[in-house]
Amino acid sequence: MTTEPDTARRTGAYRAHGNEPALFEHAFHRGAPVMLTGPTGCGKTRFVEHMAATLRRPLVTVSCHDDLTSSDLVGRFMVTGGDVVWTDGPLTRAVKAGAICYLDEVVEARHDSLAVLHSLTDHRRTLYLDRAGEIVTAPDTFMLVCSYNPAYRGSLKELKPSFRQRFVTLAMTYLPPAAEAETVATETGVPLAVAQRLVRCANAVRAADRAFHFEPPSTRVLVTAAHLIVSGATEFEAAEACVLAPLSTDGAITDGLREIAAAALRSADAPAIS
Amino acid sequence: MTTEPDTARRTGAYRAHGNEPALFEHAFHRGAPVMLTGPTGCGKTRFVEHMAATLRRPLVTVSCHDDLTSSDLVGRFMVTGGDVVWTDGPLTRAVKAGAICYLDEVVEARHDSLAVLHSLTDHRRTLYLDRAGEIVTAPDTFMLVCSYNPAYRGSLKELKPSFRQRFVTLAMTYLPPAAEAETVATETGVPLAVAQRLVRCANAVRAADRAFHFEPPSTRVLVTAAHLIVSGATEFEAAEACVLAPLSTDGAITDGLREIAAAALRSADAPAIS
Amino acid sequence: MTTEPDTARRTGAYRAHGNEPALFEHAFHRGAPVMLTGPTGCGKTRFVEHMAATLRRPLVTVSCHDDLTSSDLVGRFMVTGGDVVWTDGPLTRAVKAGAICYLDEVVEARHDSLAVLHSLTDHRRTLYLDRAGEIVTAPDTFMLVCSYNPAYRGSLKELKPSFRQRFVTLAMTYLPPAAEAETVATETGVPLAVAQRLVRCANAVRAADRAFHFEPPSTRVLVTAAHLIVSGATEFEAAEACVLAPLSTDGAITDGLREIAAAALRSADAPAIS
Amino acid sequence: MTTEPDTARRTGAYRAHGNEPALFEHAFHRGAPVMLTGPTGCGKTRFVEHMAATLRRPLVTVSCHDDLTSSDLVGRFMVTGGDVVWTDGPLTRAVKAGAICYLDEVVEARHDSLAVLHSLTDHRRTLYLDRAGEIVTAPDTFMLVCSYNPAYRGSLKELKPSFRQRFVTLAMTYLPPAAEAETVATETGVPLAVAQRLVRCANAVRAADRAFHFEPPSTRVLVTAAHLIVSGATEFEAAEACVLAPLSTDGAITDGLREIAAAALRSADAPAIS
Amino acid sequence: MTTEPDTARRTGAYRAHGNEPALFEHAFHRGAPVMLTGPTGCGKTRFVEHMAATLRRPLVTVSCHDDLTSSDLVGRFMVTGGDVVWTDGPLTRAVKAGAICYLDEVVEARHDSLAVLHSLTDHRRTLYLDRAGEIVTAPDTFMLVCSYNPAYRGSLKELKPSFRQRFVTLAMTYLPPAAEAETVATETGVPLAVAQRLVRCANAVRAADRAFHFEPPSTRVLVTAAHLIVSGATEFEAAEACVLAPLSTDGAITDGLREIAAAALRSADAPAIS
Amino acid sequence: MTTEPDTARRTGAYRAHGNEPALFEHAFHRGAPVMLTGPTGCGKTRFVEHMAATLRRPLVTVSCHDDLTSSDLVGRFMVTGGDVVWTDGPLTRAVKAGAICYLDEVVEARHDSLAVLHSLTDHRRTLYLDRAGEIVTAPDTFMLVCSYNPAYRGSLKELKPSFRQRFVTLAMTYLPPAAEAETVATETGVPLAVAQRLVRCANAVRAADRAFHFEPPSTRVLVTAAHLIVSGATEFEAAEACVLAPLSTDGAITDGLREIAAAALRSADAPAIS
Repeated sequence: MTTEPDTARRTGAYRAHGNEPALFEHAFHRGAPVMLTGPTGCGKTRFVEHMAATLRRPLVTVSCHDDLTSSDLVGRFMVTGGDVVWTDGPLTRAVKAGAICYLDEVVEARHDSLAVLHSLTDHRRTLYLDRAGEIVTAPDTFMLVCSYNPAYRGSLKELKPSFRQRFVTLAMTYLPPAAEAETVATETGVPLAVAQRLVRCANAVRAADRAFHFEPPSTRVLVTAAHLIVSGATEFEAAEACVLAPLSTDGAITDGLREIAAAALRSADAPAIS
Repeated sequence: MTTEPDTARRTGAYRAHGNEPALFEHAFHRGAPVMLTGPTGCGKTRFVEHMAATLRRPLVTVSCHDDLTSSDLVGRFMVTGGDVVWTDGPLTRAVKAGAICYLDEVVEARHDSLAVLHSLTDHRRTLYLDRAGEIVTAPDTFMLVCSYNPAYRGSLKELKPSFRQRFVTLAMTYLPPAAEAETVATETGVPLAVAQRLVRCANAVRAADRAFHFEPPSTRVLVTAAHLIVSGATEFEAAEACVLAPLSTDGAITDGLREIAAAALRSADAPAIS
Repeated sequence: MTTEPDTARRTGAYRAHGNEPALFEHAFHRGAPVMLTGPTGCGKTRFVEHMAATLRRPLVTVSCHDDLTSSDLVGRFMVTGGDVVWTDGPLTRAVKAGAICYLDEVVEARHDSLAVLHSLTDHRRTLYLDRAGEIVTAPDTFMLVCSYNPAYRGSLKELKPSFRQRFVTLAMTYLPPAAEAETVATETGVPLAVAQRLVRCANAVRAADRAFHFEPPSTRVLVTAAHLIVSGATEFEAAEACVLAPLSTDGAITDGLREIAAAALRSADAPAIS
Repeated sequence: MTTEPDTARRTGAYRAHGNEPALFEHAFHRGAPVMLTGPTGCGKTRFVEHMAATLRRPLVTVSCHDDLTSSDLVGRFMVTGGDVVWTDGPLTRAVKAGAICYLDEVVEARHDSLAVLHSLTDHRRTLYLDRAGEIVTAPDTFMLVCSYNPAYRGSLKELKPSFRQRFVTLAMTYLPPAAEAETVATETGVPLAVAQRLVRCANAVRAADRAFHFEPPSTRVLVTAAHLIVSGATEFEAAEACVLAPLSTDGAITDGLREIAAAALRSADAPAIS
Repeated sequence: MTTEPDTARRTGAYRAHGNEPALFEHAFHRGAPVMLTGPTGCGKTRFVEHMAATLRRPLVTVSCHDDLTSSDLVGRFMVTGGDVVWTDGPLTRAVKAGAICYLDEVVEARHDSLAVLHSLTDHRRTLYLDRAGEIVTAPDTFMLVCSYNPAYRGSLKELKPSFRQRFVTLAMTYLPPAAEAETVATETGVPLAVAQRLVRCANAVRAADRAFHFEPPSTRVLVTAAHLIVSGATEFEAAEACVLAPLSTDGAITDGLREIAAAALRSADAPAIS
Repeated sequence: MTTEPDTARRTGAYRAHGNEPALFEHAFHRGAPVMLTGPTGCGKTRFVEHMAATLRRPLVTVSCHDDLTSSDLVGRFMVTGGDVVWTDGPLTRAVKAGAICYLDEVVEARHDSLAVLHSLTDHRRTLYLDRAGEIVTAPDTFMLVCSYNPAYRGSLKELKPSFRQRFVTLAMTYLPPAAEAETVATETGVPLAVAQRLVRCANAVRAADRAFHFEPPSTRVLVTAAHLIVSGATEFEAAEACVLAPLSTDGAITDGLREIAAAALRSADAPAIS
């Protein structure tokens, strides 16, 4: 099964943004599905891994994309030894195991994938396998979690309101600067001052982003930049390769951002971020 | 078979909105199919479950989506043991069993799925399985029920008028406030005063919705919010996660709605809803 | 075979609108295919059933839709017992049996379905089964009948002129009011006065339809409404559920129509329809 | 094979429009493919049948449509007795038999169907069956004939110029009135005067067509109308059902045309058509 | 294999337009692929056949179209005797045989067909058969040649610049008038004076084409016209059927061109073309 | 496996543009994936080959295109001997072998291909083979490298920002003129002066390109031109066939560029490029 038995060890100390762990637990105990929203790299996947470890449930992750069919989720008939045998998909395996099933970027999936979730996300908590002629009622420990990034402007698809209303929705955002810097330093081993300069650089770009309409840099790219610095790259090289270069393919915009980022990195005498 | 033998127990006391149970029974006894229309979560699925229990018929539910083919409904040939054997789909099984077949959100299905319904929804009451070379005449107890939400603005599809005219159409809407609050309290165990505040909050948003053009919150989300409150969440947290966050991905609109909702929750001295 | 051996009994006394039975018989005896045009529910299907009974030919009906392929009509190779065997489709079976083949709503079918009809609808009267390597010449008693609703505004497709010219075209419309009321009363058992009020109600809506551009109510919906009345519904309930509710999903329009319909039902002292 | 061995008998005396039989023969003897253009029903198919009979070649006809693949033309692998065997398509069979292969309405076919024709329509006169690994060189008696109607305004597709230049193009049009009336009378047995009135009626509509932009009535519909008259229909009924009703679905236009057609039918004292 | 072992004999004496044979040979000896551009029928295919004969390499020709997949080029797994066996496609066979592979009208092919060419058209000269798990390095005698017509205005597709840059590009155009007339006379046997009038006619139309935006007549259509003349057609009939009729379906334009062409054919006293 | 064991020998001495080899090594040692951006033919593929040789890792290259599915990358079930056996795709083979997997022109691939990369490009470094029910954790030596050309204006697709942020992005461009001329001379054997004139010619066109919006000529086309010169072509012929002809299909633009290029080639007395 596509579970991750050791997520607790890998994610280390998850840093809560607000009341999202408590609400997640409430939803878990009431059998309600959860929808996580927020910008790229703000920690949605890490949060689900943390909660799976906290609640001691296996985690089944499915990265959604626009060719994902309901058969990819629930299962299909497959030819084995000349005969046709039903094979459970990851969603069905998660329901049977009472696991947490995490559909990452659910807005990317096709409609038929989402229709099979209806009977799992209302009072029925049941999966109808029409083609296998089987009905699977979810145990109390099964939980469905979905995520999507509502601010992503490149998506042509939108979740139906009637689908969104089936979930307890937890809106996430970036960590506050001090916590973000601490996370970067802890995960990579760079000195805290370096991590603070990287966060200051990212926040300068994030502020500019409101005018320029591109996806702002995530905590994840700061961690990657810090890794490169540990490995020997300069702070400017790392910020260029991880923060600035992925942002835009338009030279003019990138030049402007480079000055903003450089200024943020240089400002040794800037007040400490809090 | 994908039936739900114990729906009567689960749905508890269905609360009629108007004359819809009587008209549904008339249609059942005259062999006429029924179309339920109304906003998301106003109780269409619960109503069908209630009527199936009342009429003592098994219920076969199919969630329609835009990859649903006529083969998914009527059946297909499948390879078993090296040979090809016809396997009935849920619609065919419902016809043969004299069950109520409920096609939820029928507007989402593909046209060919709807064409197979033609001979079932006029004086013929017959299912032609062209590929299997079989003709199935429905027993008197078979009933076809469809639903769709005409106000949902995200759908590119529209039911053909000639299809809509094949059905007795029952238009449903939300419960009146007092009945809705009572339902929320009964289903979740929150005090009636809490349920009344949640309903007042929902009605404030529903009124605003006429200007903002999004799908209004359903009774279902109030039930989920009440569940979270029972589990320990505050009323504001529950209303935020279940009523407001699913509505919109545009921050500005959500901020405005948050004030409206908060005012509705705070107004302890507001006149009792009736 | 998908025939209806007992259509004569079920359709009862077909009520001719004009010269269409005579022209249909002329076309049958000259081997010419017929195209029936007219609004939804004006009686096209019933007319074909009546003519099949009159001419003592079996009737094969195919409801067209936009996934209907030529293979669905003429047949396909299917795996049976490890080998691949050709299986005739309903059109091929009708040709071989000298039956009347009725393609309902032919405009919905895909182009390739229509191309296989070319050699059947000119002087050749022959079906070429290219994949089976077989040529089937139609016996004199075979007849192809198609129907479509030219006024339906929701269709993106249009029949090619060269295709339409292959048919003797019979344009049908609603029965005159007195005949329509008599039909409703005879089929359902409601008193003639009730049937007349329902027809008056329908004609009021049909007149309004020319301004509002929706599909007008058919005789079929009046029959369904009368059935509900027999079963115990009031005339207003039945007219609401069968005539008005299927017309439109826009509340404003429906309110206007409701007044028109109610006025037509109330007008006990209105002059008798003729 | 999908040939028509007795076309000479059925088509009777083909009536040449101009020099098209001589040019067709020149092309046949020089191994050049022919493209027939002209309005619906002007006699393209009859002309090909006549030439096949004159040149004593079998005729293989393929009605093109937008799902016609190159495999439908050249052949495909099919499962027979557990193994996969190549089966020639109609084009391959025609090449091997040295027949005339007629692709009716070639503009409707998909591009890949046309690409397989390239090596058959230049100096190579060879069919490459890439999937079967076979090369078939056409005998001298093989001829490819295509047709399309350049004036049909409903088509979104257009033949590529480089494809059109591969053919000797023969532009056909309607017969002159006297010849058309004689053809109608000869084929159906109606008196010549009746045939002349039908032709006068058709020409009145054809003239109006230049303003109204619909497909004009063909000789074929006049033959069908004459058949109905022989069977007992009046001239007005036959003209209505065969000439006017297929033209348009817009009532206003049809009313105008009906007056024009009626005037043409009535004008007993009109000068004889020549 | 789909090779043409006798092309040298059939193409006779190829008439070079400029330095294209020398550059083609340079590219062949340096292992560089060649792209031929130019209008329809200017001789691209003949040139490739001539070079294959000159270089004594087998020639594998593939007519590209928009359903051509990479599997059609490199090969696929096929069921034979119950098992699945890899079968080389024409490109793979050409690489293994060290042949010249000619992709005619390559712009019509799908993108995935072109992607498999990348590793063959740079310093690797290697074909990766991912599905077969095989790597084929091209021998020195393998050469890839593609062609397309950049002036064809009906194509929606465009070759990617990065793809075009992989080729040595040889731009071809029509032969000069004297050479073109000589070619027509030599290939068909018409007197040189007739060939000169046909070329003068074609050049008159080609000049008009710059204003009218249609594909100009090629040398190929002049050869076909000359064939018809040899067979007995008049010069006007042949020019009409081969040069004018394929150009346009718009009567007005064709009438204007007909005068231009007729004038060119009539001008017996025009100065000899050079 | 689709590896290239001898890349070190073939690529010869890679000429670094800047700090890209060092940053690539940092990313390799920190387990971070790399995205290479830059214009066509600036050396991205050569750089990856060089780094694979430097790091002594096998290289698996996949040319992406818009029919590339996730199954083409990770593997699929295939019928072998009557049974269905899972067969690893090139990505899975690269992960298992600890190789460098290079997805060339990744922007061309379909979304589902990219979704399977998510779990490989974050802290999980794991490949989930949902259909095979297998989880493959990448060894430390596995590295994913992607490339795309952000300036290519013909692409309708764009990489999602959340996808771009998963990579260390290295922006590459053309070599400086002196280094480029030296590379051309070294790889082909032309005299350095000839290589310098070709580079001067390319840079003249590249400068013009900023106004004309086409893809500028790459180092690769200069190498091909130099090869033709070595083989006997003149510098003008080689520049015409390799630099100018692929640029544009619009005669006017090409004429202007031809003068620019000719001037650059002629300027023997121009100052030496540096």
